[in-house]
Amino acid sequence: MDVLLEQAAFANEAFYLAFEAKDYSAMDSVWSASQGVMCMHPGWPALVGRGSVMQSWQAILDNPSQAQVSFFAPSFERLADTAVVVVCYEETQSAVMVATNVFVQEDERLRMVVHQAGYCDNPPVNESR
Amino acid sequence: MDVLLEQAAFANEAFYLAFEAKDYSAMDSVWSASQGVMCMHPGWPALVGRGSVMQSWQAILDNPSQAQVSFFAPSFERLADTAVVVVCYEETQSAVMVATNVFVQEDERLRMVVHQAGYCDNPPVNESR
Repeated sequence: MDVLLEQAAFANEAFYLAFEAKDYSAMDSVWSASQGVMCMHPGWPALVGRGSVMQSWQAILDNPSQAQVSFFAPSFERLADTAVVVVCYEETQSAVMVATNVFVQEDERLRMVVHQAGYCDNPPVNESR
Repeated sequence: MDVLLEQAAFANEAFYLAFEAKDYSAMDSVWSASQGVMCMHPGWPALVGRGSVMQSWQAILDNPSQAQVSFFAPSFERLADTAVVVVCYEETQSAVMVATNVFVQEDERLRMVVHQAGYCDNPPVNESR
């Protein structure tokens, strides 16, 4: 795996670690600070712009009944020398989602520009368990 | 709007025109032929690779009960000088989806590399109607 895809694997993991740990400050540093960002939580309309995206994460991470989320089976595709998309599954105790995570290089690391997660009716088995 | 974003608007429209017209050949030419591609239809697991992605479109476009789909309210974000993401809503008679469409330059035009669509419970009003 080349350096850019390794960076994408790291950035994708950082996103889910921030989500699992309900760590808003870590989540804030995952997202791009210089590009326009967009986020689509399952069932939600698109949030466009850093203000509304980070406000949604603050509400989700502050919510005590928010389920723990982990990811499995990432697939990577390079979009350019500075941009990568990661598709993976997200798992809670009761549901599996499939997600598209787009990362762009910023300050020598990859930061998230787009996240979409949607419910997946017939997900593959999580072989990492 | 700059040239790359204009190309993205055109490529995104070409995707939905192929979908609406149920034109497999047009859909085939929308998708990248040189990159790995990934597609997530609403509720489906991720399809990875051109073979399985195009097979799914063949089945969808050949299905006489497949609803007509149109799009509205696109938002654009440049990922690199050769890559753009478009987020928009998809509308049928009975449902609204939100979609992420990633396009990469190939042979001087933008072709689709990733498509994810998921159901949207509280979509915005389609103001273009």
